[in-house]
Amino acid sequence: MAITICEVGPRDGLQNEKTLLPTETKVTLIQRAVAGGVRRVEATAFVHPKRVPQMADAEQVMAQVPRDSGVSYIGLVLNRRGFERAARAGVDEVNMVVLATETFSERNQGMTVEASLRAWSEIAGLAHEAGIRPSVTLSAAFGCPFEGEVSPDRVRDLARRVVESGPAEIALADTIGVGVPTQVTELVAAVRDVAPGVALRCHFHNTRNTGYANAVAAVSAGVETLDASAGGIGGCPFAPAATGNIATEDLVYLLDRMGVATGVDLGELAATGRWIGEQLGIDVPALLGRAGTFPG
Amino acid sequence: MAITICEVGPRDGLQNEKTLLPTETKVTLIQRAVAGGVRRVEATAFVHPKRVPQMADAEQVMAQVPRDSGVSYIGLVLNRRGFERAARAGVDEVNMVVLATETFSERNQGMTVEASLRAWSEIAGLAHEAGIRPSVTLSAAFGCPFEGEVSPDRVRDLARRVVESGPAEIALADTIGVGVPTQVTELVAAVRDVAPGVALRCHFHNTRNTGYANAVAAVSAGVETLDASAGGIGGCPFAPAATGNIATEDLVYLLDRMGVATGVDLGELAATGRWIGEQLGIDVPALLGRAGTFPG
Repeated sequence: MAITICEVGPRDGLQNEKTLLPTETKVTLIQRAVAGGVRRVEATAFVHPKRVPQMADAEQVMAQVPRDSGVSYIGLVLNRRGFERAARAGVDEVNMVVLATETFSERNQGMTVEASLRAWSEIAGLAHEAGIRPSVTLSAAFGCPFEGEVSPDRVRDLARRVVESGPAEIALADTIGVGVPTQVTELVAAVRDVAPGVALRCHFHNTRNTGYANAVAAVSAGVETLDASAGGIGGCPFAPAATGNIATEDLVYLLDRMGVATGVDLGELAATGRWIGEQLGIDVPALLGRAGTFPG
Repeated sequence: MAITICEVGPRDGLQNEKTLLPTETKVTLIQRAVAGGVRRVEATAFVHPKRVPQMADAEQVMAQVPRDSGVSYIGLVLNRRGFERAARAGVDEVNMVVLATETFSERNQGMTVEASLRAWSEIAGLAHEAGIRPSVTLSAAFGCPFEGEVSPDRVRDLARRVVESGPAEIALADTIGVGVPTQVTELVAAVRDVAPGVALRCHFHNTRNTGYANAVAAVSAGVETLDASAGGIGGCPFAPAATGNIATEDLVYLLDRMGVATGVDLGELAATGRWIGEQLGIDVPALLGRAGTFPG
Protein backbone atom coordinates (compact mmCIF):
# COMPACT_ATOMS: atom_id res chain seq x y z
CA MET A 1 0.00 0.00 0.00
CA ALA A 2 1.30 3.47 -0.85
CA ILE A 3 0.21 7.09 -0.69
CA THR A 4 1.61 10.38 -1.94
CA ILE A 5 2.36 13.11 0.60
CA CYS A 6 2.00 16.68 -0.60
CA GLU A 7 4.15 19.06 1.46
CA VAL A 8 2.03 22.19 2.04
CA GLY A 9 4.29 23.91 4.58
CA PRO A 10 5.63 26.46 2.08
CA ARG A 11 2.10 27.72 1.29
CA ASP A 12 -0.68 26.72 3.71
CA GLY A 13 1.80 26.37 6.56
CA LEU A 14 3.67 29.65 6.21
CA GLN A 15 0.61 31.65 5.16
CA ASN A 16 -0.87 31.16 8.62
CA GLU A 17 2.30 31.94 10.56
CA LYS A 18 2.93 35.47 11.79
CA THR A 19 6.66 35.62 11.12
CA LEU A 20 7.48 36.69 7.55
CA LEU A 21 10.32 34.57 6.22
CA PRO A 22 12.88 35.57 3.58
CA THR A 23 12.59 33.89 0.17
CA GLU A 24 15.81 32.01 0.80
CA THR A 25 14.33 30.25 3.85
CA LYS A 26 11.23 29.24 1.91
CA VAL A 27 13.38 27.82 -0.87
CA THR A 28 15.48 25.93 1.70
CA LEU A 29 12.30 24.49 3.20
CA ILE A 30 11.31 23.19 -0.24
CA GLN A 31 14.81 21.89 -0.94
CA ARG A 32 14.89 20.02 2.36
CA ALA A 33 11.46 18.46 1.77
CA VAL A 34 12.52 17.36 -1.71
CA ALA A 35 15.81 15.98 -0.37
CA GLY A 36 13.71 14.03 2.13
CA GLY A 37 11.78 12.31 -0.65
CA VAL A 38 8.72 14.54 -1.06
CA ARG A 39 7.58 14.52 -4.69
CA ARG A 40 4.72 17.00 -4.56
CA VAL A 41 4.92 20.46 -3.00
CA GLU A 42 2.37 23.26 -2.59
CA ALA A 43 5.07 25.85 -3.19
CA THR A 44 3.32 29.21 -3.01
CA ALA A 45 0.21 31.26 -3.83
CA PHE A 46 -0.24 33.75 -6.64
CA VAL A 47 -2.57 36.11 -4.84
CA HIS A 48 -2.51 39.81 -4.02
CA PRO A 49 0.58 40.56 -1.89
CA LYS A 50 -1.39 43.06 0.21
CA ARG A 51 -3.87 40.36 1.19
CA VAL A 52 -1.23 37.68 1.85
CA PRO A 53 2.15 39.31 2.51
CA GLN A 54 3.87 35.96 3.20
CA MET A 55 3.24 34.98 -0.46
CA ALA A 56 4.47 38.23 -2.02
CA ASP A 57 7.62 36.50 -3.34
CA ALA A 58 5.80 33.72 -5.23
CA GLU A 59 7.77 34.26 -8.48
CA GLN A 60 11.11 34.39 -6.66
CA VAL A 61 10.37 31.15 -4.78
CA MET A 62 9.34 29.31 -7.95
CA ALA A 63 12.46 30.55 -9.75
CA GLN A 64 14.69 28.77 -7.22
CA VAL A 65 12.99 25.44 -6.48
CA PRO A 66 14.90 22.26 -7.39
CA ARG A 67 13.87 21.18 -10.84
CA ASP A 68 15.86 18.02 -11.48
CA SER A 69 14.05 15.42 -9.37
CA GLY A 70 10.60 15.03 -10.92
CA VAL A 71 8.85 17.01 -8.21
CA SER A 72 5.46 18.51 -9.05
CA TYR A 73 4.97 22.07 -7.80
CA ILE A 74 1.52 23.46 -7.05
CA GLY A 75 0.69 27.16 -7.08
CA LEU A 76 -2.52 28.34 -5.47
CA VAL A 77 -4.51 30.71 -7.70
CA LEU A 78 -7.90 32.33 -7.30
CA ASN A 79 -8.43 34.03 -10.68
CA ARG A 80 -7.14 34.52 -14.23
CA ARG A 81 -4.50 36.99 -13.15
CA GLY A 82 -3.15 34.56 -10.56
CA PHE A 83 -3.19 31.75 -13.11
CA GLU A 84 -1.19 33.79 -15.60
CA ARG A 85 1.44 34.62 -12.96
CA ALA A 86 1.62 30.95 -11.93
CA ALA A 87 1.96 29.75 -15.52
CA ARG A 88 4.78 32.22 -16.22
CA ALA A 89 6.48 31.12 -13.00
CA GLY A 90 6.52 27.54 -14.22
CA VAL A 91 4.20 25.69 -11.85
CA ASP A 92 3.29 22.11 -12.71
CA GLU A 93 -0.15 22.36 -11.14
CA VAL A 94 -2.57 25.09 -10.15
CA ASN A 95 -4.98 24.70 -7.26
CA MET A 96 -8.15 26.75 -6.87
CA VAL A 97 -10.12 26.90 -3.61
CA VAL A 98 -13.91 26.76 -3.52
CA LEU A 99 -15.36 27.36 -0.06
CA ALA A 100 -18.28 25.16 0.95
CA THR A 101 -20.34 27.97 2.51
CA GLU A 102 -21.41 31.44 1.37
CA THR A 103 -20.28 33.26 4.50
CA PHE A 104 -16.79 31.76 4.47
CA SER A 105 -16.49 32.38 0.71
CA GLU A 106 -17.36 36.07 1.12
CA ARG A 107 -15.02 36.51 4.10
CA ASN A 108 -12.11 34.57 2.65
CA GLN A 109 -12.28 35.31 -1.06
CA GLY A 110 -14.65 38.26 -1.28
CA MET A 111 -16.92 36.43 -3.69
CA THR A 112 -19.97 34.19 -3.72
CA VAL A 113 -19.58 30.43 -4.07
CA GLU A 114 -21.15 30.75 -7.52
CA ALA A 115 -18.49 33.29 -8.53
CA SER A 116 -15.71 31.03 -7.25
CA LEU A 117 -17.15 28.13 -9.26
CA ARG A 118 -16.99 30.36 -12.38
CA ALA A 119 -13.41 31.31 -11.52
CA TRP A 120 -12.52 27.63 -11.12
CA SER A 121 -14.06 26.86 -14.50
CA GLU A 122 -12.04 29.62 -16.15
CA ILE A 123 -8.81 28.54 -14.43
CA ALA A 124 -9.36 24.88 -15.34
CA GLY A 125 -9.87 25.82 -18.98
CA LEU A 126 -6.72 27.95 -19.07
CA ALA A 127 -4.74 25.22 -17.35
CA HIS A 128 -5.86 22.54 -19.77
CA GLU A 129 -4.78 24.77 -22.67
CA ALA A 130 -1.41 25.42 -21.02
CA GLY A 131 -0.70 21.80 -20.11
CA ILE A 132 -0.82 22.54 -16.39
CA ARG A 133 -2.69 20.15 -14.07
CA PRO A 134 -5.72 21.90 -12.53
CA SER A 135 -6.92 20.80 -9.12
CA VAL A 136 -9.66 22.20 -6.94
CA THR A 137 -10.00 22.17 -3.16
CA LEU A 138 -13.42 22.06 -1.51
CA SER A 139 -12.59 23.98 1.64
CA ALA A 140 -14.43 23.90 4.95
CA ALA A 141 -16.00 20.69 3.67
CA PHE A 142 -16.07 19.28 7.21
CA GLY A 143 -17.49 22.37 8.93
CA CYS A 144 -17.54 26.16 8.70
CA PRO A 145 -16.42 28.61 11.37
CA PHE A 146 -19.34 30.90 10.48
CA GLU A 147 -22.19 28.61 9.42
CA GLY A 148 -21.39 25.52 11.48
CA GLU A 149 -22.32 22.14 10.06
CA VAL A 150 -21.79 21.51 6.32
CA SER A 151 -23.94 18.71 4.95
CA PRO A 152 -22.42 15.92 2.85
CA ASP A 153 -25.07 16.77 0.24
CA ARG A 154 -23.64 20.25 -0.05
CA VAL A 155 -20.15 18.82 -0.64
CA ARG A 156 -21.51 16.32 -3.14
CA ASP A 157 -23.29 19.11 -5.06
CA LEU A 158 -20.12 21.20 -5.17
CA ALA A 159 -18.10 18.20 -6.36
CA ARG A 160 -20.69 17.64 -9.09
CA ARG A 161 -20.25 21.26 -10.19
CA VAL A 162 -16.43 21.35 -10.13
CA VAL A 163 -16.07 18.06 -11.98
CA GLU A 164 -17.67 19.63 -15.08
CA SER A 165 -14.42 21.52 -15.72
CA GLY A 166 -12.25 18.40 -15.72
CA PRO A 167 -10.16 18.62 -12.54
CA ALA A 168 -7.04 16.47 -12.46
CA GLU A 169 -7.83 16.12 -8.75
CA ILE A 170 -10.38 17.13 -6.13
CA ALA A 171 -9.18 17.88 -2.61
CA LEU A 172 -11.37 17.77 0.49
CA ALA A 173 -10.14 20.19 3.13
CA ASP A 174 -10.96 20.31 6.82
CA THR A 175 -9.88 23.93 6.91
CA ILE A 176 -10.68 24.58 10.58
CA GLY A 177 -9.87 21.12 11.96
CA VAL A 178 -13.29 19.96 13.12
CA GLY A 179 -13.69 16.75 11.10
CA VAL A 180 -13.75 13.13 12.28
CA PRO A 181 -13.04 9.82 10.53
CA THR A 182 -16.68 8.92 9.86
CA GLN A 183 -17.00 12.20 7.94
CA VAL A 184 -13.91 11.40 5.91
CA THR A 185 -15.39 8.08 4.85
CA GLU A 186 -18.74 9.67 4.03
CA LEU A 187 -17.37 12.65 2.09
CA VAL A 188 -14.87 10.62 0.10
CA ALA A 189 -17.69 8.27 -0.93
CA ALA A 190 -19.94 11.23 -1.84
CA VAL A 191 -17.27 12.81 -4.04
CA ARG A 192 -16.32 9.51 -5.69
CA ASP A 193 -19.97 9.02 -6.47
CA VAL A 194 -20.19 12.17 -8.60
CA ALA A 195 -16.56 12.29 -9.73
CA PRO A 196 -15.65 8.70 -10.61
CA GLY A 197 -12.06 8.25 -11.67
CA VAL A 198 -10.94 11.69 -10.45
CA ALA A 199 -7.92 11.53 -8.11
CA LEU A 200 -8.71 12.54 -4.52
CA ARG A 201 -6.60 14.40 -2.00
CA CYS A 202 -7.38 15.15 1.65
CA HIS A 203 -6.19 18.10 3.71
CA PHE A 204 -6.42 17.93 7.49
CA HIS A 205 -5.64 20.26 10.36
CA ASN A 206 -5.01 18.82 13.81
CA THR A 207 -6.84 21.67 15.57
CA ARG A 208 -8.82 19.34 17.83
CA ASN A 209 -6.54 16.27 17.74
CA THR A 210 -8.58 14.49 15.08
CA GLY A 211 -6.23 15.11 12.13
CA TYR A 212 -4.20 11.92 12.22
CA ALA A 213 -7.25 9.71 12.78
CA ASN A 214 -8.75 11.44 9.74
CA ALA A 215 -5.62 10.70 7.73
CA VAL A 216 -5.92 7.00 8.57
CA ALA A 217 -9.57 7.06 7.47
CA ALA A 218 -8.57 8.76 4.20
CA VAL A 219 -5.95 6.07 3.52
CA SER A 220 -8.56 3.39 4.21
CA ALA A 221 -10.95 5.15 1.83
CA GLY A 222 -8.30 4.96 -0.88
CA VAL A 223 -7.46 8.63 -1.44
CA GLU A 224 -4.30 9.08 -3.48
CA THR A 225 -2.70 12.04 -1.68
CA LEU A 226 -2.54 13.52 1.82
CA ASP A 227 -1.45 17.08 2.56
CA ALA A 228 0.87 17.71 5.50
CA SER A 229 3.31 20.43 6.60
CA ALA A 230 6.81 19.99 8.01
CA GLY A 231 6.61 20.56 11.76
CA GLY A 232 2.83 20.85 11.54
CA ILE A 233 3.21 24.59 11.04
CA GLY A 234 0.19 26.58 9.97
CA GLY A 235 -2.00 27.60 12.86
CA CYS A 236 -5.55 28.56 12.09
CA PRO A 237 -6.72 32.14 11.63
CA PHE A 238 -10.07 31.27 13.21
CA ALA A 239 -8.63 29.70 16.38
CA PRO A 240 -5.61 31.71 17.47
CA ALA A 241 -4.07 29.15 19.84
CA ALA A 242 -4.77 26.16 17.61
CA THR A 243 -2.27 23.90 15.93
CA GLY A 244 -1.83 23.77 12.17
CA ASN A 245 -1.75 21.19 9.44
CA ILE A 246 -1.02 17.61 10.36
CA ALA A 247 2.77 17.36 10.51
CA THR A 248 4.62 15.61 7.70
CA GLU A 249 6.99 13.79 10.07
CA ASP A 250 4.24 12.60 12.42
CA LEU A 251 2.18 11.43 9.43
CA VAL A 252 5.17 9.60 7.95
CA TYR A 253 5.85 7.90 11.30
CA LEU A 254 2.22 6.77 11.47
CA LEU A 255 2.14 5.51 7.89
CA ASP A 256 5.59 3.87 8.07
CA ARG A 257 4.54 1.86 11.11
CA MET A 258 1.26 0.91 9.41
CA GLY A 259 3.15 -0.39 6.38
CA VAL A 260 1.88 2.35 4.06
CA ALA A 261 4.72 3.50 1.81
CA THR A 262 5.27 7.25 1.35
CA GLY A 263 8.80 7.45 -0.09
CA VAL A 264 9.55 10.11 2.51
CA ASP A 265 12.48 9.81 4.92
CA LEU A 266 11.30 10.20 8.50
CA GLY A 267 14.58 11.46 9.93
CA GLU A 268 15.03 14.09 7.23
CA LEU A 269 11.52 15.43 7.68
CA ALA A 270 11.74 15.42 11.48
CA ALA A 271 14.92 17.50 11.20
CA THR A 272 13.19 19.80 8.70
CA GLY A 273 10.25 20.25 11.07
CA ARG A 274 12.57 21.28 13.91
CA TRP A 275 14.50 23.59 11.59
CA ILE A 276 11.46 25.44 10.26
CA GLY A 277 10.28 25.93 13.85
CA GLU A 278 13.59 27.62 14.63
CA GLN A 279 13.20 29.88 11.58
CA LEU A 280 9.72 30.87 12.76
CA GLY A 281 10.72 31.13 16.42
CA ILE A 282 8.00 28.69 17.50
CA ASP A 283 7.71 25.27 19.12
CA VAL A 284 6.21 23.31 16.26
CA PRO A 285 3.11 21.19 16.96
CA ALA A 286 4.79 18.06 15.53
CA LEU A 287 5.57 15.60 18.32
CA LEU A 288 8.12 13.35 16.65
CA GLY A 289 10.93 15.87 16.94
CA ARG A 290 10.35 15.96 20.69
CA ALA A 291 9.61 12.32 21.41
CA GLY A 292 12.05 10.73 18.98
CA THR A 293 11.36 7.98 16.51
CA PHE A 294 10.71 4.30 17.31
CA PRO A 295 12.46 1.96 17.28
CA GLY A 296 15.29 4.37 18.10
CA MET B 1 -22.66 2.54 19.50
CA ALA B 2 -21.25 3.29 22.93
CA ILE B 3 -18.00 3.03 24.84
CA THR B 4 -16.93 3.55 28.44
CA ILE B 5 -14.28 6.14 29.20
CA CYS B 6 -12.04 5.48 32.18
CA GLU B 7 -10.58 8.70 33.59
CA VAL B 8 -6.95 7.94 34.47
CA GLY B 9 -5.82 11.51 35.19
CA PRO B 10 -5.80 11.04 38.98
CA ARG B 11 -3.35 8.11 38.73
CA ASP B 12 -1.50 7.67 35.43
CA GLY B 13 -1.83 11.37 34.64
CA LEU B 14 -0.64 12.84 37.93
CA GLN B 15 1.98 10.16 38.57
CA ASN B 16 3.97 11.41 35.59
CA GLU B 17 3.66 15.13 36.39
CA LYS B 18 6.41 16.82 38.38
CA THR B 19 4.20 19.05 40.54
CA LEU B 20 2.95 17.28 43.68
CA LEU B 21 -0.70 18.18 44.24
CA PRO B 22 -2.52 18.30 47.59
CA THR B 23 -5.05 15.55 48.26
CA GLU B 24 -7.88 18.08 48.05
CA THR B 25 -6.99 18.91 44.42
CA LYS B 26 -6.90 15.24 43.47
CA VAL B 27 -10.31 14.72 45.03
CA THR B 28 -11.66 17.77 43.21
CA LEU B 29 -10.32 16.35 39.93
CA ILE B 30 -12.23 13.13 40.58
CA GLN B 31 -15.36 15.01 41.66
CA ARG B 32 -15.27 17.11 38.50
CA ALA B 33 -14.81 14.08 36.23
CA VAL B 34 -17.71 12.31 37.95
CA ALA B 35 -19.88 15.44 37.70
CA GLY B 36 -19.05 15.43 33.97
CA GLY B 37 -20.46 11.94 33.54
CA VAL B 38 -17.39 9.71 33.96
CA ARG B 39 -18.40 6.39 35.53
CA ARG B 40 -15.03 4.73 35.87
CA VAL B 41 -11.96 6.33 37.45
CA GLU B 42 -8.41 5.12 38.02
CA ALA B 43 -8.25 6.93 41.35
CA THR B 44 -4.84 6.18 42.78
CA ALA B 45 -2.06 3.62 43.27
CA PHE B 46 -1.27 1.65 46.40
CA VAL B 47 2.48 1.50 45.94
CA HIS B 48 5.46 2.52 48.05
CA PRO B 49 5.28 6.29 48.73
CA LYS B 50 9.04 6.62 48.34
CA ARG B 51 8.88 5.21 44.80
CA VAL B 52 5.84 7.26 43.77
CA PRO B 53 5.49 10.31 46.02
CA GLN B 54 2.44 11.62 44.09
CA MET B 55 0.47 8.56 45.23
CA ALA B 56 1.44 8.73 48.92
CA ASP B 57 -2.06 9.86 49.88
CA ALA B 58 -3.91 6.94 48.26
CA GLU B 59 -6.03 6.19 51.36
CA GLN B 60 -6.92 9.85 51.89
CA VAL B 61 -8.02 10.23 48.25
CA MET B 62 -10.19 7.12 48.35
CA ALA B 63 -11.78 8.25 51.63
CA GLN B 64 -13.13 11.40 49.92
CA VAL B 65 -14.27 10.29 46.45
CA PRO B 66 -17.98 10.69 45.64
CA ARG B 67 -19.74 7.45 46.43
CA ASP B 68 -23.35 8.08 45.52
CA SER B 69 -23.31 7.91 41.72
CA GLY B 70 -22.42 4.34 40.79
CA VAL B 71 -18.85 5.18 39.82
CA SER B 72 -16.33 2.34 39.84
CA TYR B 73 -12.95 3.26 41.34
CA ILE B 74 -9.77 1.47 40.34
CA GLY B 75 -6.68 1.27 42.54
CA LEU B 76 -3.40 0.20 41.00
CA VAL B 77 -1.61 -2.48 43.03
CA LEU B 78 1.55 -4.46 42.42
CA ASN B 79 1.57 -6.96 45.30
CA ARG B 80 -0.35 -8.41 48.26
CA ARG B 81 0.48 -5.49 50.51
CA GLY B 82 -0.84 -3.03 47.93
CA PHE B 83 -3.95 -5.14 47.44
CA GLU B 84 -4.67 -5.17 51.17
CA ARG B 85 -4.33 -1.40 51.39
CA ALA B 86 -6.60 -0.98 48.36
CA ALA B 87 -9.23 -3.35 49.76
CA ARG B 88 -9.27 -1.51 53.09
CA ALA B 89 -9.56 1.81 51.25
CA GLY B 90 -12.71 0.56 49.50
CA VAL B 91 -11.74 0.34 45.84
CA ASP B 92 -14.20 -1.32 43.47
CA GLU B 93 -11.46 -2.68 41.21
CA VAL B 94 -7.75 -3.42 41.43
CA ASN B 95 -5.47 -3.20 38.43
CA MET B 96 -2.12 -4.97 38.21
CA VAL B 97 0.48 -4.12 35.56
CA VAL B 98 2.47 -6.80 33.73
CA LEU B 99 5.21 -5.38 31.51
CA ALA B 100 5.65 -7.03 28.14
CA THR B 101 9.46 -7.12 28.27
CA GLU B 102 12.02 -8.26 30.84
CA THR B 103 14.10 -5.09 30.78
CA PHE B 104 11.13 -2.78 31.31
CA SER B 105 9.77 -5.08 34.03
CA GLU B 106 13.06 -5.00 35.94
CA ARG B 107 13.41 -1.23 35.57
CA ASN B 108 9.82 -0.35 36.37
CA GLN B 109 8.81 -2.95 38.94
CA GLY B 110 12.10 -4.45 40.03
CA MET B 111 10.95 -7.95 39.15
CA THR B 112 10.96 -10.42 36.28
CA VAL B 113 7.91 -10.82 34.07
CA GLU B 114 7.48 -14.28 35.59
CA ALA B 115 7.42 -12.77 39.08
CA SER B 116 4.87 -10.15 38.03
CA LEU B 117 2.67 -12.91 36.56
CA ARG B 118 2.80 -14.67 39.94
CA ALA B 119 1.94 -11.41 41.70
CA TRP B 120 -1.01 -10.94 39.32
CA SER B 121 -2.21 -14.44 40.07
CA GLU B 122 -2.07 -13.81 43.81
CA ILE B 123 -3.81 -10.42 43.50
CA ALA B 124 -6.54 -11.87 41.27
CA GLY B 125 -7.20 -14.63 43.79
CA LEU B 126 -7.42 -12.20 46.71
CA ALA B 127 -9.68 -9.90 44.70
CA HIS B 128 -12.07 -12.66 43.76
CA GLU B 129 -12.34 -13.64 47.45
CA ALA B 130 -12.95 -10.02 48.45
CA GLY B 131 -15.55 -9.30 45.74
CA ILE B 132 -13.29 -6.74 44.05
CA ARG B 133 -12.97 -6.78 40.24
CA PRO B 134 -9.40 -7.70 39.22
CA SER B 135 -8.05 -6.31 35.96
CA VAL B 136 -4.60 -6.62 34.45
CA THR B 137 -2.77 -4.26 32.10
CA LEU B 138 -0.28 -5.60 29.56
CA SER B 139 2.05 -2.60 29.45
CA ALA B 140 4.45 -1.66 26.67
CA ALA B 141 2.42 -4.04 24.50
CA PHE B 142 3.02 -1.79 21.47
CA GLY B 143 6.74 -1.28 21.96
CA CYS B 144 9.38 -1.03 24.69
CA PRO B 145 11.74 1.89 25.35
CA PHE B 146 14.55 -0.58 26.13
CA GLU B 147 13.99 -3.61 23.91
CA GLY B 148 12.25 -1.96 20.96
CA GLU B 149 9.68 -4.00 19.03
CA VAL B 150 7.31 -6.25 20.98
CA SER B 151 5.86 -9.07 18.90
CA PRO B 152 2.11 -9.74 18.87
CA ASP B 153 2.97 -13.34 19.77
CA ARG B 154 4.58 -12.13 22.97
CA VAL B 155 1.42 -10.19 23.86
CA ARG B 156 -0.75 -13.18 22.98
CA ASP B 157 1.35 -15.44 25.21
CA LEU B 158 1.11 -13.01 28.12
CA ALA B 159 -2.65 -12.71 27.63
CA ARG B 160 -2.87 -16.53 27.69
CA ARG B 161 -1.01 -16.54 31.00
CA VAL B 162 -2.98 -13.77 32.71
CA VAL B 163 -6.35 -15.14 31.68
CA GLU B 164 -5.72 -18.24 33.83
CA SER B 165 -6.39 -16.15 36.93
CA GLY B 166 -9.80 -14.96 35.76
CA PRO B 167 -9.36 -11.25 35.02
CA ALA B 168 -12.55 -9.20 34.86
CA GLU B 169 -10.76 -7.24 32.14
CA ILE B 170 -7.49 -7.17 30.19
CA ALA B 171 -6.05 -3.77 29.21
CA LEU B 172 -3.58 -3.24 26.38
CA ALA B 173 -1.32 -0.26 27.07
CA ASP B 174 0.82 1.72 24.67
CA THR B 175 2.85 2.96 27.60
CA ILE B 176 5.38 4.98 25.57
CA GLY B 177 3.08 6.13 22.75
CA VAL B 178 4.61 4.35 19.77
CA GLY B 179 1.63 2.32 18.55
CA VAL B 180 -0.40 2.64 15.35
CA PRO B 181 -3.94 1.58 14.40
CA THR B 182 -2.92 -1.60 12.57
CA GLN B 183 -1.23 -2.79 15.78
CA VAL B 184 -4.38 -2.05 17.76
CA THR B 185 -6.43 -4.22 15.43
CA GLU B 186 -3.85 -7.01 15.51
CA LEU B 187 -3.29 -7.03 19.28
CA VAL B 188 -6.99 -6.82 20.14
CA ALA B 189 -7.60 -9.83 17.87
CA ALA B 190 -4.68 -11.73 19.43
CA VAL B 191 -5.95 -11.15 22.97
CA ARG B 192 -9.56 -11.98 22.08
CA ASP B 193 -8.30 -15.19 20.56
CA VAL B 194 -6.85 -16.45 23.86
CA ALA B 195 -9.23 -14.62 26.21
CA PRO B 196 -12.67 -15.00 24.64
CA GLY B 197 -15.40 -13.20 26.54
CA VAL B 198 -13.00 -11.15 28.68
CA ALA B 199 -13.70 -7.40 28.58
CA LEU B 200 -10.98 -5.38 26.85
CA ARG B 201 -9.66 -1.92 27.62
CA CYS B 202 -7.10 0.13 25.68
CA HIS B 203 -4.72 2.74 27.04
CA PHE B 204 -3.03 5.15 24.65
CA HIS B 205 -0.52 7.95 24.96
CA ASN B 206 -0.36 10.63 22.26
CA THR B 207 3.43 10.85 22.40
CA ARG B 208 3.84 10.71 18.61
CA ASN B 209 0.36 11.93 17.57
CA THR B 210 -0.99 8.43 16.98
CA GLY B 211 -3.11 8.15 20.14
CA TYR B 212 -6.45 9.31 18.78
CA ALA B 213 -6.14 7.26 15.60
CA ASN B 214 -5.43 4.29 17.86
CA ALA B 215 -8.54 5.08 19.90
CA VAL B 216 -10.66 5.01 16.74
CA ALA B 217 -9.14 1.64 15.80
CA ALA B 218 -9.91 0.30 19.28
CA VAL B 219 -13.54 1.41 19.00
CA SER B 220 -13.76 -0.30 15.60
CA ALA B 221 -12.25 -3.45 17.11
CA GLY B 222 -15.02 -3.46 19.72
CA VAL B 223 -13.09 -2.80 22.94
CA GLU B 224 -15.38 -1.90 25.82
CA THR B 225 -13.31 0.83 27.53
CA LEU B 226 -10.80 3.52 26.60
CA ASP B 227 -8.51 5.22 29.10
CA ALA B 228 -8.00 8.98 28.88
CA SER B 229 -6.88 11.80 31.20
CA ALA B 230 -8.47 15.22 31.64
CA GLY B 231 -6.30 17.73 29.78
CA GLY B 232 -4.14 14.91 28.43
CA ILE B 233 -1.88 15.26 31.47
CA GLY B 234 0.70 12.59 32.11
CA GLY B 235 3.89 13.12 30.18
CA CYS B 236 6.16 10.16 29.70
CA PRO B 237 9.16 9.43 31.92
CA PHE B 238 11.02 8.02 28.91
CA ALA B 239 10.52 11.05 26.63
CA PRO B 240 10.83 14.20 28.73
CA ALA B 241 9.18 16.63 26.31
CA ALA B 242 6.45 14.25 25.23
CA THR B 243 2.73 14.63 25.75
CA GLY B 244 0.75 12.34 28.00
CA ASN B 245 -2.36 10.21 27.84
CA ILE B 246 -4.91 10.97 25.18
CA ALA B 247 -7.07 13.76 26.60
CA THR B 248 -10.56 12.95 27.83
CA GLU B 249 -12.09 16.07 26.27
CA ASP B 250 -10.43 15.58 22.87
CA LEU B 251 -11.47 11.91 22.87
CA VAL B 252 -15.05 12.82 23.79
CA TYR B 253 -15.16 15.43 21.00
CA LEU B 254 -13.93 12.82 18.50
CA LEU B 255 -16.38 10.14 19.67
CA ASP B 256 -19.33 12.55 19.98
CA ARG B 257 -18.87 13.67 16.37
CA MET B 258 -18.54 10.04 15.24
CA GLY B 259 -21.81 9.15 16.92
CA VAL B 260 -20.19 6.97 19.60
CA ALA B 261 -21.90 7.59 22.96
CA THR B 262 -19.71 8.07 26.03
CA GLY B 263 -22.10 9.63 28.55
CA VAL B 264 -19.44 12.28 29.22
CA ASP B 265 -20.17 15.99 28.94
CA LEU B 266 -17.68 17.66 26.62
CA GLY B 267 -17.92 21.13 28.12
CA GLU B 268 -17.45 19.89 31.69
CA LEU B 269 -14.41 17.84 30.79
CA ALA B 270 -12.86 20.62 28.70
CA ALA B 271 -13.20 22.94 31.70
CA THR B 272 -11.72 20.25 33.95
CA GLY B 273 -8.78 19.82 31.58
CA ARG B 274 -8.03 23.56 31.69
CA TRP B 275 -8.44 23.61 35.47
CA ILE B 276 -6.05 20.72 36.16
CA GLY B 277 -3.50 22.42 33.88
CA GLU B 278 -3.74 25.52 36.10
CA GLN B 279 -3.23 23.39 39.21
CA LEU B 280 -0.12 21.83 37.68
CA GLY B 281 1.13 25.09 36.20
CA ILE B 282 1.32 23.62 32.69
CA ASP B 283 -0.26 24.12 29.28
CA VAL B 284 -2.11 20.86 28.91
CA PRO B 285 -1.66 18.87 25.67
CA ALA B 286 -5.43 18.73 25.09
CA LEU B 287 -6.39 20.94 22.16
CA LEU B 288 -10.11 21.35 22.69
CA GLY B 289 -9.72 23.86 25.49
CA ARG B 290 -7.65 26.05 23.15
CA ALA B 291 -9.55 25.57 19.88
CA GLY B 292 -13.08 25.45 21.26
CA THR B 293 -15.78 22.96 20.49
CA PHE B 294 -17.69 22.63 17.22
CA PRO B 295 -20.31 23.59 16.37
CA GLY B 296 -19.78 26.47 18.82
